[in-house]
Formats: sequence, structure tokens, C-alpha cells
Amino acid sequence: MADPHLGDVPAAEFRAAMHRVADLVADYLEHVADYPVLSRARPGDVRAALPAVPPRDPEPLEAILADYRRLIEPNLTHWNHPGFMAYFGITGSGPGILGETLAAGLNVNAMLWRTSPAATELEDLVTDWLRQMLGLPEGYRGHINDTASVSTFVALGAARDRTPGLEVRERGLAGRPDVPPLVIYASEQAHSSVDKAAIALGLGIAGLRKVPVDAAFRMDAGALETMLAEDRARGRLPIAVVATAGTTSTTSLDPLAAIAAICRREALWLHVDAAYAGSAAICPEFRPLFDGIEAADSVVVNPHKWLFTPVDCSVLLVREPAALRAAFSLVPEYLRTDEEGVTNLMDYGIQLGRRFRALKLWMVIRAFGVRGLRDRIRHHIGLARELEGWIRAEPGFEVVAPVPFSVVCFRLARGATGEAQDAANDRLLAAVNAAGPVFLSATTLRGRRVLRVAIGNLRTRREHVATAWALIREAAARV
Amino acid sequence: MADPHLGDVPAAEFRAAMHRVADLVADYLEHVADYPVLSRARPGDVRAALPAVPPRDPEPLEAILADYRRLIEPNLTHWNHPGFMAYFGITGSGPGILGETLAAGLNVNAMLWRTSPAATELEDLVTDWLRQMLGLPEGYRGHINDTASVSTFVALGAARDRTPGLEVRERGLAGRPDVPPLVIYASEQAHSSVDKAAIALGLGIAGLRKVPVDAAFRMDAGALETMLAEDRARGRLPIAVVATAGTTSTTSLDPLAAIAAICRREALWLHVDAAYAGSAAICPEFRPLFDGIEAADSVVVNPHKWLFTPVDCSVLLVREPAALRAAFSLVPEYLRTDEEGVTNLMDYGIQLGRRFRALKLWMVIRAFGVRGLRDRIRHHIGLARELEGWIRAEPGFEVVAPVPFSVVCFRLARGATGEAQDAANDRLLAAVNAAGPVFLSATTLRGRRVLRVAIGNLRTRREHVATAWALIREAAARV
Repeated sequence: MADPHLGDVPAAEFRAAMHRVADLVADYLEHVADYPVLSRARPGDVRAALPAVPPRDPEPLEAILADYRRLIEPNLTHWNHPGFMAYFGITGSGPGILGETLAAGLNVNAMLWRTSPAATELEDLVTDWLRQMLGLPEGYRGHINDTASVSTFVALGAARDRTPGLEVRERGLAGRPDVPPLVIYASEQAHSSVDKAAIALGLGIAGLRKVPVDAAFRMDAGALETMLAEDRARGRLPIAVVATAGTTSTTSLDPLAAIAAICRREALWLHVDAAYAGSAAICPEFRPLFDGIEAADSVVVNPHKWLFTPVDCSVLLVREPAALRAAFSLVPEYLRTDEEGVTNLMDYGIQLGRRFRALKLWMVIRAFGVRGLRDRIRHHIGLARELEGWIRAEPGFEVVAPVPFSVVCFRLARGATGEAQDAANDRLLAAVNAAGPVFLSATTLRGRRVLRVAIGNLRTRREHVATAWALIREAAARV
Repeated sequence: MADPHLGDVPAAEFRAAMHRVADLVADYLEHVADYPVLSRARPGDVRAALPAVPPRDPEPLEAILADYRRLIEPNLTHWNHPGFMAYFGITGSGPGILGETLAAGLNVNAMLWRTSPAATELEDLVTDWLRQMLGLPEGYRGHINDTASVSTFVALGAARDRTPGLEVRERGLAGRPDVPPLVIYASEQAHSSVDKAAIALGLGIAGLRKVPVDAAFRMDAGALETMLAEDRARGRLPIAVVATAGTTSTTSLDPLAAIAAICRREALWLHVDAAYAGSAAICPEFRPLFDGIEAADSVVVNPHKWLFTPVDCSVLLVREPAALRAAFSLVPEYLRTDEEGVTNLMDYGIQLGRRFRALKLWMVIRAFGVRGLRDRIRHHIGLARELEGWIRAEPGFEVVAPVPFSVVCFRLARGATGEAQDAANDRLLAAVNAAGPVFLSATTLRGRRVLRVAIGNLRTRREHVATAWALIREAAARV
């Protein structure tokens, strides 16, 4: 049995290594703030430090873990750092890490109910918990994808394939004079995943029309109506609208109720991308911002963004799950089962294999409780508002977008020309990020360079935001 | 700072829980064989045992872990069990679990090099290790997807979008009289993920033609040529062929060299689905089975199938990575970076967010070494051949397909009619799976029900295969 050439690593060695890893992870979380947030590695550093050919012989686990500690951990950008304020702040919280570790040990594939009853039922349950937390009506059915890109893609795939009379699933789109150009609508501020879905689904970039936004970066519902009428007049066939509740650059919210009314009238699928900001809807006081969401055909919320769950965990809630199954269910002989009335997760998208992602989300919701999750989100929003106040009070700076959630968009507004201002902001960003304690990102709004502070990590406290602001002011004095 | 309503769970509690989880995972792997492989849960059992509404208040980690132990672990089908011989046997090996746990603690998103230098470079490195192990020539570039379904989908997306003159990415497929019907080819035995890719990409089920197979379930290359000529004559445009090296039902290998020659002549993208069997190509003696694979445009191999890496880990190797980027790269303002010449993994598919999956694969390859991985694969193939011999020697049974790798397809051939034989095989399967020590699955070949024994778990030894065979013989005496 103990043939060293076969089987897994010896049980005692594995157990000891798991305890070593438990400490490595715990140490990391306790000391992550000692690292610069943004990696200082130069391109090629890590690869050059490792052998270009795979090892012929087994290596001891301790040696591998030592290399991890020496080479991997220090050469990363630290998303779990309290100073990570770029893109969207995320957290792999303790309870989520525990869940992910247990899931790795189980290594189930939740493609069919019978291959993972507890994983399937926990995914049904915990996505329904989330539905309740968001205040969505009964009837929505949830499942977990890896990313919002995939959630949006499968939702728009369902929208495409239910178009009456076209039989897109069966007959495709190519070489068919009977199929008009199909069109999806999203605001200019929508996430690039919508563009990628349009490409993948065969609608092309031309099949996605970008609706203009108002001064607060929200979709102009009147412009949407005009575009729909124009497109119909030109013989194009609108099929879906993607409304964003919390855009990536500014976290603006499209007017969901107005868009939902248009979609209802025009019989369009309404997909709401609430990947980041949807988590705020669990707080009753922020729920009104999302009014209209309850009319959506599909809603994506990523607990791996702002609900403290390790990547990957993107929940897609769908009002008519049969539409998803009609688009994607396909049961080959080798996957036929005879259980009746059960969920088989493979029916809800293109991926057959499914990790046990519900476990970590279940542990996060239980460990913090709905009340604890609300408090943490409120805290982040409060910190962002405080920072907004500091920036507004500072000469030479401007806040360039409303702050409905935990992201502040601002710029240094000094400089003779727009280009000079942009260059100053880029220099400011580089200087702040080079300092170490924080990592911010940038975007472009109305053609001008804009900096973003995104607060969303559990470890981020007021002192970290104050440090970010001090570094920004200091760098501004120099650039 | 220690506000219980904010932040993560307290550090000391987390560390203690991580050690508890280390033991839970180690205990599980040591005792997994005590469970029946196939879950005995009834539909609804797990969900009914848990509250239908999310908890308002935080719960202690110990209580959650106790529920995990009581409710979740026992109500799963055990993919890490030595008696798991259904579908394809897989293993979440110790080294892989360590890697997955460390990745969960880091919680990086490897979308851009700058957001995860070590994760990006390790993914470049370790997929190149795998390329070398498979004997593929230099020049192939690898990245890791979640599943083979996604790997095949993005490869076929690249094939579609590089079609000259059509500008599919920009203009889509719908409403274009200038676009002919596009066609992909795969054998009748190809995986359902190819059908799903055809649906998703807007080619439709009609855009995937199923090529007949020979007596050994291999694509008939002559039939492929005939279909290509027919389709061209009818004005359809062939774009890609999916050849399978290790089909899901029987692990048959399509004639790669012959198909590659056709693809070269016809300027078609050749995608090789070696998701399961590709791992065997790391053994020199099995490499000749894959001759011709070095002419593929893309190859998918899933280390989470037969290379002892926890789900999810699907490696896609592509000869012209620029084709993938041309199809899928899209850099919005908020993701622009200024590093030159680095890999940004978001450019290689539809998913923006990417987990640090390279870590576990790196640890698996190092912990076992190439030699150790080869020995384990040889062992599995040896066990399958031994089982094949037992079945061939047993009156009333027949082996219904060649056994090139570690899957044996067979049936009980008693019974007056084909239908009666099918029913007997279904009863046999149910009886064997109900016993507890093993879990087998079934498929249908040439209209007849067939049972499969798939050997691929690291813990599976000769005695487990012998147990499976004893249970099969015993049940056959009864049905």
C-alpha cells in the first residue's frame, strides 16, 4: 500500500502540510498590510526564478511550500490588503477561505444532483437566501457561475434563444436571410463583459448599441427609446437591455424602473448587472436605489466582489429558469439520470463541470449574519462618503461623479489644458501606487483621466482611507 | 479595532478554525472509503435540514463546521473515494488541495499581469511545463480555464472569428446575407460541450455536423472528407474540426494525423479535445496514440481530470495565441495598464476574473514529479487492462470497445432481446451502485446500454477494482 510511486502523498505528510498551510494563510492575513499593495515585481522576475522544465522526480512538500513563501506570496498584488482600493475592493474572508478549503478536499463536481446532492441543494438554498436578502420576489431561481462575465453571457444567450420564430439554438444565426440583425442595448458605462457576450453570441460588437448617459453617468432612458424605435424602423430586432446597477467606473445606477417599463412594453429581456453594487441592496436604506430591479428577467450579483466571498462566486438570479434550460440544457447518454424534479446544475449554462461554490457563500452568510454583512457594507459606504467630503473640501481637486456606494471618482483639476491635467493625474496615480500602502486605479470619463478609490475590503478601516488621502495630497503637491 | 460588527472574524478564531479544517480535510481523505461512494441522500433531504431564511445574527465558526460535518460531507457523492469509477475518475490530491487552500487565502484576481504577477507568470510557466510533458512543440501557448467546455468554446470562437473577410467579431452573424452557414465537425462520440459551444457561438446545433465513427468509435476521416465536400458544394462554410483524443463514452481516439492532414488542406482550425486522455500523453509509450496532435491549432487537457489536480483546471494550448486575442481581447479604460509585453490573462477568453489556478497544478507536478505522474497513469491503465481481461474471460459478458486508457466499457449480454439486455444492464448498474463500495456509470453505444468502469483516482488500487468486479458478477447472478 505504501508504494511511494503510487497513491497520494502519505497521509501524515499531507496532514502536517495542511497545518503548515493553515498557518501560512493565517499569517498572511495577519501580516498582509506589511506588503506594498501593488507588486513591485518586474515582468519576468518570477518565471526566471523557476526551472523552465518540469521536475523529473518528486519534491518534498516543505520545499514546495518554502518556494511558495519565498517566491509566490511576495510577488503578488495583494487583493486582501486593507489598502487595496483599485477596481473594486474584494475580500477573501476567513469564513470563505474555510469553505473553499473544505470544497477543495471534497473535490466534487456538482454537474448533476446525483453527483453532489448536498452541493446542489446548498446552491439552491444559498442563492435563495441571497434573493431574500436582496428583496427580490419569490420565483427567481439562482445558481452560481464563476464570473459575472459568464452570468451575463448565459443570460443574454437565453434572451437570444427565446426570440420567437427564429429557433436560434437549433438553426444558428449564420446564412439565414430570415434572421434580422439582433440588437442588445447597454449604456456607454456598461462593463466590457457585455461587449464580450455580444461577440461570443454572434451578435458582434455592432449588435451591441451603447446608450448615452446623463450627467450622472446613468443610462438615458429617453435615448434608449429613440434607439429602439430607430432600430426597429431599420429592420433590426432588439432582444435585450442590460441595465447596470453600479457601473465599473463610477458605480452609477441606470434608471431601472424606467428601463423595466420600456422592456415590458417592447417585450425585451432585462438583464441587470449588479455584480458589484447589488450587495448594497441587502441594506434596507439602499434598497430604494434598486427600485425596478424586481422586474428584471435576470440579475447578476457577485458575492466575490462585495460580499466577502473568495473568487469565484457570481450568482445569477433568473425569473424564468426554463429560458436558461431551453438555451443550454443538453443531456448526452453518459449523463442521463433518473431522479425526477431535481436540479442538475449542468442545465444552466455552457459549463458542465461545477465546483462546490455554495459552501463558501453559506459559511460567509452564517458567520457574519445578515446584520453583520449590512454593517460592513454601511461602514464601507460611510468611509467613501467621508473621503468624498475631504476631496470636495480640498482646493485643486474635484469629485467627478456622485458617490452612491463605496467608490469615489475624482481628479486633480490643476493644469493649463485638459491634456496637462490628465498627465498630472497619471503622475499622481503612479506616485501614490509606488508608495506601497495603497493601490488605486484610474478610468476615463468624458475623455478625461479620473482616479478611483474603491473601498470594499473587510480589513479597510478609516485609517487606511486617511492614509490614501494623505498620500494623494502629498503626491499632488509634487506633480 | 476589535469592533465585532466590522472586519473579518477575529484572527485567533480564524487560525483555530483553519487548523480544525486542516484536520477535517485530512480526516476525510483518510476515511473517505468508509462512505458509500454514491450518495444515499434523497432529493430535498439537505435543503429540508437547513433554515429556509438566512440567519440574522452571526453564528460561531465551530457551529458552522459542525453542520458541515453532520449535513454536508455525508450527503455527497464521494469523488475522492477509491471506488469512484463513474464518468471519469478524478482526484483532488493532497498537493493540489494545499495549492487551492493557499490560493483561497491570497484571493487574487489574475486578470492582468499587474494585479497578480506571480499568478500570471506561474500560469505561463506551468502550462509550458505541461506542453513539454505532452510532447507538443514549442510555440504553443497555454492558459488555464475553469472547464474543458470553456476551453473548447473559446477555441471554436477564435476559429469562427478568424474566418477571412467576415469580420464576425465586429459585425456578428445575424442579418448578414454575405455570411454563409458556418459548420464545425466532430464525431458522433464527441463531448456535449462541442454542441454547447456551437449553440453559444450562434452556429446552432445545425452548424455542428456529427461525423460517423468506425467500429472502434473513432471518427471516420473518409466520411469527414465527404461531408466537407458536400457542405462546400451546398454553399456552407466549414471552419473547424474537433477531434477527440479520448472520447467520453469509450475513450476512443480519432485518427489525429489523418484529420490534421484534412484540416491543413482545407484550411480548417483543428481543435483536439484531449480533456481526459491527454494526461496519458506524458508517458512516452502512450504518446504514439496521439500522433498528429502536434498539428492542432488548439488542444485542451484537463489536469482536473487525470492529473490529480482539484477542479477546476482546464489547460488550453494554442498554436496561434494571437487568434484568441483577436477574438476576445477588449481593454476598457478602467483596465488599461502600461506594462509592455506581459501576459494579461483577461485577453484569452470571455471571463475577466481569473482565480490563481496555476498554483495547485505547480504543486501537483512538483510533489509527484513527472516520473511519479507517469507511474500513476500507467498503474491506472494497467488496472483497466486487468479488468478487461477478467470481463473477457467471463461468460455472459462482453467488452464492447477497445481499452486504450483506463476506462472499460462492457455489458451483460444475456437476455432474449436487446431491450431485455438493456434492462438487465440497468438493473445490474443500480444493484452495484446501491451496494456502496463503488460507483459506475453507463452510456449508450449503437443503441445499446453499456456500463463503464473508469479508473482515475489516486486512491484506487487493485483491490478496489477487484471489489467492483466481484460486485458486478454477484449482481449479474441476481438480475
